[in-house]
Amino acid sequence: MKYATYTVNGETFYGAVTDGGMIALNGDFPQWPTLLDVIQASGFDALEKAAQGKPATHSEFEYEMVLPNAPRILCVGVNFPDRNAEYKDGSEQPKYMSLFPRFASGFTGHNRPLIRPPENETLDYEGEVAIVIGKTGRRISQDDAYDHIAALTLCNEGTIRDWVRHAKFNVTQGKNWDKSGAIGPWLVPFTDASQLDDARIITRVNGEVRQDDVLSRMMHPIRREIEYISTFMTLQPGDIIVTGTPTGSGARLDPPQYLKPGDVVEVEVNGIGTLRNSVEDERL
Amino acid sequence: MKYATYTVNGETFYGAVTDGGMIALNGDFPQWPTLLDVIQASGFDALEKAAQGKPATHSEFEYEMVLPNAPRILCVGVNFPDRNAEYKDGSEQPKYMSLFPRFASGFTGHNRPLIRPPENETLDYEGEVAIVIGKTGRRISQDDAYDHIAALTLCNEGTIRDWVRHAKFNVTQGKNWDKSGAIGPWLVPFTDASQLDDARIITRVNGEVRQDDVLSRMMHPIRREIEYISTFMTLQPGDIIVTGTPTGSGARLDPPQYLKPGDVVEVEVNGIGTLRNSVEDERL
Repeated sequence: MKYATYTVNGETFYGAVTDGGMIALNGDFPQWPTLLDVIQASGFDALEKAAQGKPATHSEFEYEMVLPNAPRILCVGVNFPDRNAEYKDGSEQPKYMSLFPRFASGFTGHNRPLIRPPENETLDYEGEVAIVIGKTGRRISQDDAYDHIAALTLCNEGTIRDWVRHAKFNVTQGKNWDKSGAIGPWLVPFTDASQLDDARIITRVNGEVRQDDVLSRMMHPIRREIEYISTFMTLQPGDIIVTGTPTGSGARLDPPQYLKPGDVVEVEVNGIGTLRNSVEDERL
Repeated sequence: MKYATYTVNGETFYGAVTDGGMIALNGDFPQWPTLLDVIQASGFDALEKAAQGKPATHSEFEYEMVLPNAPRILCVGVNFPDRNAEYKDGSEQPKYMSLFPRFASGFTGHNRPLIRPPENETLDYEGEVAIVIGKTGRRISQDDAYDHIAALTLCNEGTIRDWVRHAKFNVTQGKNWDKSGAIGPWLVPFTDASQLDDARIITRVNGEVRQDDVLSRMMHPIRREIEYISTFMTLQPGDIIVTGTPTGSGARLDPPQYLKPGDVVEVEVNGIGTLRNSVEDERL
């Protein structure tokens, strides 16, 4: 079963995703007003039970960013070996991963446009798997790491490239434009290691494959990400880790190919789904 | 009048700060469960009215980080000219400011210890003024910037120096250790430009002055910070901007002098107050 946050005529719901539409579930759980509250209460089993046998409540709806009130989102910087670098020896692998926070405001939902601002046209895609923490922990071992994951989802970690290098350090201002990226479409409960270990990620722009790699090639595997991050901060239910993007973003092409209005970007991972977003210029 | 978040026997309150103790106010405003809700509702006037003539409710209490549920905290990187650099021409001033987010979990409250972790002993102080946004805005002009500030407070932007350079870019992992910094003691409503324009910031370690500068010397003034940040993200009530630290942190001394258990750090700004924190080793 998959769970999403969505709106109908401006009203926000969460529910179970079915072929016929959404089964609204928030009305059954007034103690959990949002999907974040469900995560914090380890409530997926209760949701699944409540959804049994119910018909779809809404066939017309708009997806929202899957956890619009996610308190903390941490992204892992380039985490796949460049294909050219694969033939060199392994000594160039960085000892520690690069990390940067993004605010929830920087993300929209599935089937909604990424917004290209008038200040700069270098809007770029990055397809990634995102994990949602379900269990509090500090200094989590790699062996225990997967026990702390509640759910999986997808991220288009959309970036305004020129602004990433405004300052000498820190990519903050290129990574936090309002609705420049997307997280969704839904949460898939994490129940089996193979959901991550056998995952393949493909990003397409207008149908053309731009990124295609397997998570097993990550330089800093997801177990290590959880271990490292939880060294300095206590991971809490609802925290999101965006785990890293393969090579092939638009900035790496020669010449670079940035997103423009009308483009459609799809991020697809087996077992999770496909996150699809068009691109629009911001209306001022 | 000044407002703080505090706890008594594990119960959290907010209220007005007086010489005799705290006047608890959250009970008068069930619609505003936290000080963040007060900010979002522009509720300082209502708080001031409710506090009139009331005696202190609590004389024994512990300060909390002033807005423990602050959704977004953005810090401005080194923003004062190095004293050695003052004698060169102005061409070295960076065009854009460096920015990095910190999570609220990285901060404790006034009179509470900063926590030095066992993994690394390079805990350092950075005294700063923090502003709290009170009015939503995008692409705010410098002329209008001060209209978007609800309150001022102080920050010791405590840092684990060695971890700031773990990765090639981004200071994230050196800046987000649990309770490695502090924000407080309280919020001072922002009512007059001179509160910022005439502010002088002094940081002392065990009584010795380590940082001493005036905000008017900032390379990127606070009006510009608001203008720049609001270019890429809509500023919302409750957002905190930590505006930058003067030279004189422990890492800049020769040899570097990091904080050790028992040290006391004070960040003082005229018109706002003094934020005082001791240092303790983490208990594992």
